[in-house]
Amino acid sequence: MNEEKRKKILGVIDHTLLDPNADDGRLRRLCEEAAAYGTASVCVAPSAVAKVKAAFPSLTVCTVIGFPLGYQTAAAKLAEAADALANGADELDMVMNRVDLKNGRDDAVTEEIRRLKALCGERTLKVIVESCDLTEDEKIRACRCVTEGGADFIKTSTGFGRGGAALPDVALFRAHIGKNVKIKAAGGIRTASELEAFYDAGCDRIGASGGVEALK
Amino acid sequence: MNEEKRKKILGVIDHTLLDPNADDGRLRRLCEEAAAYGTASVCVAPSAVAKVKAAFPSLTVCTVIGFPLGYQTAAAKLAEAADALANGADELDMVMNRVDLKNGRDDAVTEEIRRLKALCGERTLKVIVESCDLTEDEKIRACRCVTEGGADFIKTSTGFGRGGAALPDVALFRAHIGKNVKIKAAGGIRTASELEAFYDAGCDRIGASGGVEALK
Amino acid sequence: MNEEKRKKILGVIDHTLLDPNADDGRLRRLCEEAAAYGTASVCVAPSAVAKVKAAFPSLTVCTVIGFPLGYQTAAAKLAEAADALANGADELDMVMNRVDLKNGRDDAVTEEIRRLKALCGERTLKVIVESCDLTEDEKIRACRCVTEGGADFIKTSTGFGRGGAALPDVALFRAHIGKNVKIKAAGGIRTASELEAFYDAGCDRIGASGGVEALK
Amino acid sequence: MNEEKRKKILGVIDHTLLDPNADDGRLRRLCEEAAAYGTASVCVAPSAVAKVKAAFPSLTVCTVIGFPLGYQTAAAKLAEAADALANGADELDMVMNRVDLKNGRDDAVTEEIRRLKALCGERTLKVIVESCDLTEDEKIRACRCVTEGGADFIKTSTGFGRGGAALPDVALFRAHIGKNVKIKAAGGIRTASELEAFYDAGCDRIGASGGVEALK
Repeated sequence: MNEEKRKKILGVIDHTLLDPNADDGRLRRLCEEAAAYGTASVCVAPSAVAKVKAAFPSLTVCTVIGFPLGYQTAAAKLAEAADALANGADELDMVMNRVDLKNGRDDAVTEEIRRLKALCGERTLKVIVESCDLTEDEKIRACRCVTEGGADFIKTSTGFGRGGAALPDVALFRAHIGKNVKIKAAGGIRTASELEAFYDAGCDRIGASGGVEALK
Repeated sequence: MNEEKRKKILGVIDHTLLDPNADDGRLRRLCEEAAAYGTASVCVAPSAVAKVKAAFPSLTVCTVIGFPLGYQTAAAKLAEAADALANGADELDMVMNRVDLKNGRDDAVTEEIRRLKALCGERTLKVIVESCDLTEDEKIRACRCVTEGGADFIKTSTGFGRGGAALPDVALFRAHIGKNVKIKAAGGIRTASELEAFYDAGCDRIGASGGVEALK
Repeated sequence: MNEEKRKKILGVIDHTLLDPNADDGRLRRLCEEAAAYGTASVCVAPSAVAKVKAAFPSLTVCTVIGFPLGYQTAAAKLAEAADALANGADELDMVMNRVDLKNGRDDAVTEEIRRLKALCGERTLKVIVESCDLTEDEKIRACRCVTEGGADFIKTSTGFGRGGAALPDVALFRAHIGKNVKIKAAGGIRTASELEAFYDAGCDRIGASGGVEALK
Repeated sequence: MNEEKRKKILGVIDHTLLDPNADDGRLRRLCEEAAAYGTASVCVAPSAVAKVKAAFPSLTVCTVIGFPLGYQTAAAKLAEAADALANGADELDMVMNRVDLKNGRDDAVTEEIRRLKALCGERTLKVIVESCDLTEDEKIRACRCVTEGGADFIKTSTGFGRGGAALPDVALFRAHIGKNVKIKAAGGIRTASELEAFYDAGCDRIGASGGVEALK
C-alpha cells in the first residue's frame, strides 16, 4: 500500500474504543492517535463523550446508542441520543432493533430510525444491523428500513456479536440501500490488508480498534 | 404600510397559537394562514408538533420548551427539546431559568443554553428571558448567557407574563448580545403599527398570535 | 378556629412556592415554615427539588410537571417526572393536557396519567385539571380520566389560570371521581376562613402560598 | 432434590430471555413457563416490557438497563429506567459503569445507583457488576457503591461477559455488602445442581434462561 492510500484509509477509519473496562489512559491515547493520524473520528462510549469533546475539541466524536443489543425502546434510544448530542457527539452509531425486524415489525424499525434522524438533524446517523445474525431477507429489509428512515449509513456489525464485517454483505447492502445511504464496515477488521479490502470494496467508513496501529 | 413592507413583516412573524385550551380547528386555521401569508413559522404547543408537521410538511414548525415559567431542570428541558426535534420541530423557543439568573447562577444558565444548542445542532434555538421580570443588570447578564451559550436568538417575553415586548429592551439587547445573536420580540404585539415598530427597530423575528389578522 | 383544627388544616397544606422569580431566601423560609408548622409538604419548582431535599431531608417534597399549561408531550412529562423523582421528589402535581381533553381525546389523557402513575409507583400523583377553563362535561370527563389513569388526587387549579379553586367544583369532583381518588384544592386560597371552608368541604389537601402565614 | 426444594428454587429464579434475536413465540413461552412454574419474575428486553405486562398482568416483570456494557451516561440510564417503569416494569437490573469504577470514580458510581434507586422507589433495583472483569479490590468497592447507593441487590454477571456467576464471588459479596442488600447470581447457571449450589450458597435470586427447563 502506498502512502497516499494509507492516508486515505486512515481518513475513513472511526478509531474505536468500546471496551467496558477501558481506563482513561487508553481513551487519551486513542484520541491522540486519531489527531495524529487523521482518522475520520473517534468512536467512544457514551459516558466518555463529554470529556473527549472537552479535551480534544477538534476531533469528530462518534458514540454508540442502544449498544450492542439494540432492543431498548425507541424512547430510551432517543433519550440516550439526545444526551450524547448535548454532550457534543457529532455522529451516532445506533443498533437496529433486531427483535422487531425478525418479528416483521419493519414499520417500527423504520419509525425508530426516522425519529432518531429527526433528532440528529445534520449530524450523522449510522444504523448497525448486526448482519451475522440476519438472514438474507432480513438484510434486505434492514436496508429498506435504513433507507426509508433517512439514516446516513448502514453499518455491518457491532464488533460484539458472533461475527463481524463480511465483504459479501457490503455488496448486498450496496445493491439494496438508497443512493443517499453510505456503508460502514466494522467488526473484526484488524490487518492492513483487511482494511484495504473493505476500502476497495467501497466502504465509506471502517470501524476498527486497531486500524491505526495496523497502518501507522 | 406598502405592500412590500407588509410582506416583509409577515415574513418575520412566528405565527403563534399557545393557548392551552385551543381546539384542533384553530390549530388548522393557524397553519393555513401561515402557508397562505408566508410567515416565518408557526409556533405551536409541543404536543401539536407531530400532527402539524404531518399535515403541513412545508411549514417551519417552532415550539416552546420549559414554557412559560422556565424553572424546570436542564435535564427535563433537554428531554422536552429532544422529543420536539424527533417529532419534527425546526425551531425551539426555550424559557431561561430566571430563578438561576436572579440568584447569580449565570454559569448554570449558560450551560443549560449551551447543552440545548448542542442538541439542536443547526436548528434554531431562541431563549426567552421574560424581560418584564428582569432588572437592567439581569437583562445584561441574560444577554451574556444567551451569547456564550451559543443560542441563535434572544426573545423578549413569553406572552404569559406581567408584561410583553418593549422597544427599549430591544435596544438594550442589541447593545449587549454577540454579533451572531438575533432578536425576537414577542408578547402583546397586536396591531399593524406595533408590528411595524418592532420590525423597524430591527427585530429579526416577531412572535404574534394576531399578526396575520392585523396585516392581511 | 380552635388550635386543634388549625393544626389539622396546617397538616393538609402543600406549602407552595412556584414563583419563577423567587430567590433562594424565600425558598429557605418556605421550607423552615413547613418544618415548623407541620404542613403536608413543600411544593417547589422542579429545579429546586434536589437542593430542598438535601437541605431538608425530612420534608415531603412535591413538585409540578408540565406546569402550568399541560400541553407538553406525554414523553416530555414522563422525562420531567423521572428527573424529579431521581432528585428526590415525593409527590408530583401534573397538569392534564386540556387540549386533548377539549378535543375529545380522553384516551390519550388517561393513558398519559396511567404512564405517569406507573412511573411514580407508591409516590403520590396529583392531576391538575384547571377547572376554571373546563365546562361541566369536561370536568366530569376529567374525573373519569384521573380515576381510570390511577392517579391519587384530582387538583382543581394551577394558581396560574384565570380562576382558582371553587367549592362547587369540589362537590362535583366528589360525585364523579373513584373511591381511591382524593381532592386537592388550590388557587387563590389565602385567608384562614377560605382554608377552613375547603377543609370542611372535605379536601384532603390544600395548596397555598400564604396558608401558613394565615394560620400561624 | 426433593419437591419442596425444587419449588423453592423455582421461586427465586428470574426466568430470563435476553437474546437480541428472540422471536415473539419464545417470549410467550417464557411467560407461560414463569406462570406455570412460579418463578420470581420474567426478565425480558426493555422493548418487550409493555407487551409482556399487557399479556401477563400477574407476572413480576424485570428488565435490564444499560445492558450489558454499562457505560451509558447516568442520564441515559435514568431515561431508560423511567420508560421501563412507565411501561410496567417491576424490577430493574442495571449494569454498573465499570469504566468509572476502574478509574476510581466510585462517587459517580454510587451517585448513579442512588438516583436510579430514587427513581425506582419501592420497585426492586439490582446492580450488575460483571464480576469476571473485576479485581478483588474492585469487587469490594463495587459492594460499597451498591450498598451506599441504596440498591436492593448486587448481581454477579450479565451473562454476556467472559465469565458468569462464581460461588467465591457470592461469599465475597456477602462479606462486603450492607445488611439490606441481597444477592442475585446470574450467568452460566444451567443445571439443577448448579442452581442448587447457588441457592444453598444463600443467593436470594438466580437469573437463568434454562432454569425452569432444568428443574421442571
